[in-house]
Amino acid sequence: MSHAQIPTQPGPPTRIVVVGGVAAGMSCAARARRLDERAEIVVLERGEHVSFAGCGLPYHVGGEIPSAEQLLVQTPASLRAALDLDVRPGHDVVGLDATARVVHVRTAEGGVTLPYDALVLAPGARAVTPPLPGVDSPRVRTLRTVGDARALRDQVTAGAPRAVVLGGGFIGLEAAEQLAQAGLEVALVELASHVLPPLEPELASLVTAELERLGIAVHDGVGATEVEHGPRHDTVVLADGTRLAAELVVLSVGVRPDTAVFEAAGVACERGAIVVDQHGRTNLPGVWAAGDAVVATDTVTGVRRPVPLAGPANRAGRQVADAILRPETARPIPTALGTAIVRVGELAAALTGANRAALAEAGVAHHTVHLHPSQHAGWFPGASPVHLVVHFADDGRLLGAQAVGADGVDKRIDVLATAIRAGLTVGDLIDLDLAYAPPFGSAKDAVNLAGMAASNVLDGRLRLWHAADLDDALGTALVLDVRSRAEFDAGHVAGALNVPHTELRDRLDEVRAAAAGRPVRALCGSGLRSHIAHRVLSQAGFDSASLSGGMLTLRAALGRQATTRLVTEEALVA
Amino acid sequence: MSHAQIPTQPGPPTRIVVVGGVAAGMSCAARARRLDERAEIVVLERGEHVSFAGCGLPYHVGGEIPSAEQLLVQTPASLRAALDLDVRPGHDVVGLDATARVVHVRTAEGGVTLPYDALVLAPGARAVTPPLPGVDSPRVRTLRTVGDARALRDQVTAGAPRAVVLGGGFIGLEAAEQLAQAGLEVALVELASHVLPPLEPELASLVTAELERLGIAVHDGVGATEVEHGPRHDTVVLADGTRLAAELVVLSVGVRPDTAVFEAAGVACERGAIVVDQHGRTNLPGVWAAGDAVVATDTVTGVRRPVPLAGPANRAGRQVADAILRPETARPIPTALGTAIVRVGELAAALTGANRAALAEAGVAHHTVHLHPSQHAGWFPGASPVHLVVHFADDGRLLGAQAVGADGVDKRIDVLATAIRAGLTVGDLIDLDLAYAPPFGSAKDAVNLAGMAASNVLDGRLRLWHAADLDDALGTALVLDVRSRAEFDAGHVAGALNVPHTELRDRLDEVRAAAAGRPVRALCGSGLRSHIAHRVLSQAGFDSASLSGGMLTLRAALGRQATTRLVTEEALVA
Repeated sequence: MSHAQIPTQPGPPTRIVVVGGVAAGMSCAARARRLDERAEIVVLERGEHVSFAGCGLPYHVGGEIPSAEQLLVQTPASLRAALDLDVRPGHDVVGLDATARVVHVRTAEGGVTLPYDALVLAPGARAVTPPLPGVDSPRVRTLRTVGDARALRDQVTAGAPRAVVLGGGFIGLEAAEQLAQAGLEVALVELASHVLPPLEPELASLVTAELERLGIAVHDGVGATEVEHGPRHDTVVLADGTRLAAELVVLSVGVRPDTAVFEAAGVACERGAIVVDQHGRTNLPGVWAAGDAVVATDTVTGVRRPVPLAGPANRAGRQVADAILRPETARPIPTALGTAIVRVGELAAALTGANRAALAEAGVAHHTVHLHPSQHAGWFPGASPVHLVVHFADDGRLLGAQAVGADGVDKRIDVLATAIRAGLTVGDLIDLDLAYAPPFGSAKDAVNLAGMAASNVLDGRLRLWHAADLDDALGTALVLDVRSRAEFDAGHVAGALNVPHTELRDRLDEVRAAAAGRPVRALCGSGLRSHIAHRVLSQAGFDSASLSGGMLTLRAALGRQATTRLVTEEALVA
Repeated sequence: MSHAQIPTQPGPPTRIVVVGGVAAGMSCAARARRLDERAEIVVLERGEHVSFAGCGLPYHVGGEIPSAEQLLVQTPASLRAALDLDVRPGHDVVGLDATARVVHVRTAEGGVTLPYDALVLAPGARAVTPPLPGVDSPRVRTLRTVGDARALRDQVTAGAPRAVVLGGGFIGLEAAEQLAQAGLEVALVELASHVLPPLEPELASLVTAELERLGIAVHDGVGATEVEHGPRHDTVVLADGTRLAAELVVLSVGVRPDTAVFEAAGVACERGAIVVDQHGRTNLPGVWAAGDAVVATDTVTGVRRPVPLAGPANRAGRQVADAILRPETARPIPTALGTAIVRVGELAAALTGANRAALAEAGVAHHTVHLHPSQHAGWFPGASPVHLVVHFADDGRLLGAQAVGADGVDKRIDVLATAIRAGLTVGDLIDLDLAYAPPFGSAKDAVNLAGMAASNVLDGRLRLWHAADLDDALGTALVLDVRSRAEFDAGHVAGALNVPHTELRDRLDEVRAAAAGRPVRALCGSGLRSHIAHRVLSQAGFDSASLSGGMLTLRAALGRQATTRLVTEEALVA
């Protein structure tokens, strides 16, 4: 130690060993250095690269990020220079002795045993390879490393004409979009009933339509059964008999915590994911963990599961460094909201908090509103809808939100994610003072409007019916379409009565006669006019309700069935 | 009442008279109808139009909104049809007798006296016309009505070559931008030391630079003294002697509550603005008020003043309807955060909460951090900086935030506005789970980073110095520039020592010698590297601090002085 360096802490320096040199691991190491100049900080990474932009990999495959070098945010040399970190790629941790406080490491040069004072496990997750006959084809590749992205990019630039993407989650969609934009003929296969399974179906169908607009063939609700190897291409065979020929196959069906070595060494895990407390401590003294390999608790439902997202991983890694080096003031690692977003062509799809399925599974009673407000003032050029779904509890607490649209989706979901984190209610959303000028928002922003609609639901002034209730409504109620005649003629529910909302007050007797004692289920384009109609009807004594999200949501919920379930005047005449 | 209508409330219908048919007034009337089908709802509007898009007026002047019809969102006929409202343009309320519960109205056809059960005052604000010699020129016009916008548009399409905009607030900037984009030679005059006076100077200079890039001549820190009338054009004379010839002059120096009639009738006011409680009640029974004419209480400072913004006006109008018709469950009107945004060319500038001047005036101790993170992942194409300023209290409470940038500014300010409304601390910002994918954000979003930097300040791990301290630092400390040699050579503070942060640990003795017992004030490009340097220095025993926002903030704070205060290697050699 040079004369200039005065230790700020007594005793020998702490030796921190971090396993995993990407999101959580590198964030932890960097923070640890900023907290303690004297610590010895060693980062062990099995792979070739550290601190690379994992979320950017699909964008290199398609060429939107032209050079793979751009994904290498830091190198061992740059990390040594800036932060005095000892970063060792090609170091695979194959054993842990928590009693002796050592890890056993395999390198190209042989085995090494490294002692530590504090050990941080950030091994991340591995891509799942399903037990599919033929999945071992060299044409089949997951997309987790810079090497994967380079290999896929090479095939694209070599002129591969066809691709199959197995898995329609976030990465699968990004890969499919990129391959299509690079000119390949792309088929996307998703076992669940729709792409982006965490998204509500009435939003996912908008994403499916955008994928199809990009020329991608979407096979949802069906799995692959085999990959047949051929001389020039493989053929992915689906359970419905469809055969998809492809020169390259991207396998993106999920990830699994990469924890076998640590579980074997006594680190407590749940279904393979490391169990930690709110400071990232595992059950073993001196061993912390963070990132994709760790169990998180869902903010809304309390469900425990890994949440493999880059943002939470980066922040948790940082907080583990605090927990090690300044435990007295370390901030707890927050619960998981699971906020996520994906760009698909000209759309963005985003979500935060719980979805309908998660709420049902957790037994959380909830209400849902659907809205389609513009991202900015409707009279300002370029207005486009934000298709918004918000779930909330009886006491007004926000439970989850999702949105799809061409612009402004990320902003609304970020505001709602902040609101959920802060424990705000739907009433509080009314009061949010969001930035308004015509190019950016509306005097009543989409989020304000969601709060108003939800508050109306809670105080009983707005009673909703939902797209899923359509058959029930047609069987037991009068479906009242309050749009204009022209809108009605362009496509409506068979059996609906059309009374434009502007005529409703004068035609109540007609509605009463048509209802013949049945309830009235009103609908319009987006739910605004049917809300007014509901207010008229309910105050006139009708059992009425307004379709949440109107025809826009109904069409999206019907998805491919919309063409058969909705009739036009032309169709009726023909 | 027809047979079909069953009253939901006993007694005669309520007669609600609303004075003012734009934001707060029309919002109140519409909500009142949705709450009560039986109420008689009369809206009295002095002007020609109701429910017009006031915030869109500048965009018609420039032609970005081609037709003024697009600004007329509703008409009396459409409001009658949809909401059964009795909307009366050209009705000027000239008297109020709150004891008799009547208003006196002047119309083109003569005087009318209207009784009410509930009266809602939403008269808005008038544009201020300063007592400037010659300001009565027909070439000088404010921009508050559709008629104003049409008249200015007519002059633009008729080929007026030159314009002067007096007032560099939000509307003035929008008008100047639009006139410049329409091809006019534009000069903008702002009496305060910089345009957008509520914006911190170190952000406002970025807006000034963008205005100048658009070809607008910015005259700040100077007032107009006279408008000389000429046969072909007027000449605006400034206090510094500058003479600005113009065929049209837009006057946009502020607004004043339009309340004289009501104050004379006994409605309690403060400096001309109507005083209301949190349900919009005035001092007079049966009289409510909302919108630009009303006093609001600042969320952060508690200062009482009108906040003439469309969003709060619209929401308050709605809440006044609740207060009248369902008082038992009416939600209080929130305090004013004053969130606002403006587009200027390719930039957006936005703010929420208190600025430095307001905090100083209110005596609120605070800290400030400056950041320049990218709006999305830096390695994703199209990354551009969000220049962010965040003020916070000793206890971590958020006090205000401002941002300028080409993209993503509205999102960050909306998230921060939500956080302030929710009472979050800077520590809470670290935990916000915001939507991340490369096109939309970063794993550590700008807002997370602001929370991290601010938390570091509060726990003493990051000590900042500010651009305003430059002269002091140069006089009493060693200014240490830790950027690369190339960056240093391209422009640096005279007298600074350059030691790149990557070499700092090895050159501490050199720094110690140069400091010669003085404190060290580190700086870099944006504040990230000087933070690392500060950690190295402080742990090595130096009295050190890191320049908040780095050279990016310093350059912006210096504004036009930057060219003289910063030196380049070329300049030193020459």
